[in-house]
Amino acid sequence: MAKVSPFAPKELPRLPAIDGVRFASCEAGIRYAGRTDLLLALFEPGTTVAGVLTRSKTASAPVEWCRARLQHGMARALVVNSGNSNAFTGKRGREAVKLTAEAAAQAADCLEADVYLASTGVIGEPLDPAKFTGLLAGLAETADPEGIGDAARAIMTTDTYPKLATRQTEIEGVPVTINGIAKGAGMIAPDMATMLAFIFTDAAIEPGPLRELLAPAAEATFNAITIDGDTSTSDTLLLFATGTAVSRGAPRIGLAHDQRLASFRVALTEVLLDLAHQVVKDGEGATKFVTVKVTGAETPQAARRIALSIANSPLVKTAIAGEDPNWGRVVMAVGKAGEAADRDRLSIWLGDILVAAEGEVASSYREEAGAAYMMRRDIDIIVDVGVGEASATVWTCDLTAEYIAINADYRS
Amino acid sequence: MAKVSPFAPKELPRLPAIDGVRFASCEAGIRYAGRTDLLLALFEPGTTVAGVLTRSKTASAPVEWCRARLQHGMARALVVNSGNSNAFTGKRGREAVKLTAEAAAQAADCLEADVYLASTGVIGEPLDPAKFTGLLAGLAETADPEGIGDAARAIMTTDTYPKLATRQTEIEGVPVTINGIAKGAGMIAPDMATMLAFIFTDAAIEPGPLRELLAPAAEATFNAITIDGDTSTSDTLLLFATGTAVSRGAPRIGLAHDQRLASFRVALTEVLLDLAHQVVKDGEGATKFVTVKVTGAETPQAARRIALSIANSPLVKTAIAGEDPNWGRVVMAVGKAGEAADRDRLSIWLGDILVAAEGEVASSYREEAGAAYMMRRDIDIIVDVGVGEASATVWTCDLTAEYIAINADYRS
Repeated sequence: MAKVSPFAPKELPRLPAIDGVRFASCEAGIRYAGRTDLLLALFEPGTTVAGVLTRSKTASAPVEWCRARLQHGMARALVVNSGNSNAFTGKRGREAVKLTAEAAAQAADCLEADVYLASTGVIGEPLDPAKFTGLLAGLAETADPEGIGDAARAIMTTDTYPKLATRQTEIEGVPVTINGIAKGAGMIAPDMATMLAFIFTDAAIEPGPLRELLAPAAEATFNAITIDGDTSTSDTLLLFATGTAVSRGAPRIGLAHDQRLASFRVALTEVLLDLAHQVVKDGEGATKFVTVKVTGAETPQAARRIALSIANSPLVKTAIAGEDPNWGRVVMAVGKAGEAADRDRLSIWLGDILVAAEGEVASSYREEAGAAYMMRRDIDIIVDVGVGEASATVWTCDLTAEYIAINADYRS
Repeated sequence: MAKVSPFAPKELPRLPAIDGVRFASCEAGIRYAGRTDLLLALFEPGTTVAGVLTRSKTASAPVEWCRARLQHGMARALVVNSGNSNAFTGKRGREAVKLTAEAAAQAADCLEADVYLASTGVIGEPLDPAKFTGLLAGLAETADPEGIGDAARAIMTTDTYPKLATRQTEIEGVPVTINGIAKGAGMIAPDMATMLAFIFTDAAIEPGPLRELLAPAAEATFNAITIDGDTSTSDTLLLFATGTAVSRGAPRIGLAHDQRLASFRVALTEVLLDLAHQVVKDGEGATKFVTVKVTGAETPQAARRIALSIANSPLVKTAIAGEDPNWGRVVMAVGKAGEAADRDRLSIWLGDILVAAEGEVASSYREEAGAAYMMRRDIDIIVDVGVGEASATVWTCDLTAEYIAINADYRS
């Protein structure tokens, strides 16, 4: 059993119920014993949905199911199981998805087309839906608006704590809520496959604008974190909007650039960022939370690629684990990114400490200051590559012997 | 001190002397105590040279020096130091290179333009050339055709054994020799910066065709190995051809596609592959030598990117370290490569064992067989991605807790 992350919150946040969303979870015994592993969420008729799914070319059967249904963007039920990702399971995988959706549609009294599915766990082992399809009707009966805390637990795999976030915001003066849950652990530990995140709001937003809101928010948050550079076959982010705030006077939004969404947009990004940071902080074996900011790049894409090159470098990450202010490895990672950077104008900071400037170690830099900084739990690495105006920020954790132990031993 | 690699040869190969090449090495005390860290190699007038250098955008000062001189392709001297890579050292780095080249030119009685330089070691610390420029004249006096074994030792950093390879071949019936030495360890451990390889032959080949011979041979060997996906600021491969075989009747080759080079081309690739495999087998913390072959890809480039995605995946590499036949992680790595692959036609073998076929676990596969296979020291992973005819092979090692220990502790 992995040690609990040093970043685990002392107390879990309590999320307010959202009108039109109910949760139920139970132990289906899919893989784990003595813990919940099945979640059913039910939504009011009229609930819209948008999603961001893994770009993997070997995506799981549930991901393909969701991709097809997200086109119409309406949702009534969500079924999530942990322990088996139903990925790379061929024809049997597609059948398992179909049987699960049928059972969920019956339990929720809705169309199959309005059922969304996510599975997380081992890749390549057939998922037997008979283990849990019979449980869905019972779950539907007990589903409860207050069940989101238990929902966050039911979707965990190697996570050491459940991940929840909430924000209150308003649309045209009417209060609306955004709740979210996520699981990560090995983000991306595709064998325990995956990063899953589910967001719920009572705002009323049509499927089109909901998609247009979610995509950039995901780009700046979940798509800006990395644990090990590996991409899961199952990554799934779904945003459900029940529209129940309309009964309290909220408008129904039909256009993404509607000015009335300004605060909602900020709050949504905050919820995603909060969850994304929690995923990093619960990265397998993580002892440090690392923010990598790249400035002075030619384009935002270049800045992002350089930042990810730093954040994914095993040598940078092991240096951070060893509390070694080894900025030479940051230079290496900038160089290997393949994006424009001016070696002789490169500057590097550790937090506020200027380490390197104009292509060499800064005259003011003292190794002791760098070493002391590296003992912090939160590390900021800032790099200016000296060729333009664009910037990007990504987040990661360190690479420790504990990561190796977890991943070398996982299936045995 | 790192444990010696389990792949270290029981006995080092003895390389025949090559007419026109002499070596001398000594302890300059650049960083290490009690070991040699400075190499001078001298070449007969008329020696040609070709090179392949790191693509890093933050390449070291010696790499830039070599890149400029390789255009004319003539060589008289090579100076290599270990312990300090003279990378990211700004203006002082360029001055150090210039002073070293001046001293070497004087010692070798040649033009500065015919001096080649390589440095390997810590990044970002100024290299003081005064530590060793005074030693070069003395080295030139004692340089010896038999010194290649000592040369291989002098260029080591965290390598646990010196790397040497040799082949005899012929050009138009006249015997010629190809000798090579390399260092790697963290290939690419850019902080100990680097993969260096130096190849020497008595064949007579003009600079143009020498370049055309070297590039594809490097692509299939040194550019097809990976330890951690990190790219050094100092990677340098140089091939020196003294032309002294002309005195024994060998022709002087002016065109790369000259049919008389057929065996030479094969032998050169063999020497590079031998050294490249030695570098992988001495990868930091390596306990397994892994061959990843991808077939059925759309293009050779796609095959190579998929193979590298597998070979660089921390999750695949930790599974190998844990002797876990975790083929689901191979599926994940294929998916994240972003190249065309047909999930439902994907096949995976561990050696001769068919593990997965047509998008799911093979009916004949037994986990015990996979587990037994993973206990071998040499692991072959073969993946057919089912969309075309192209293939590629790359080599890597596993990712162990020892890698973390070496790299988290290196500078302290």
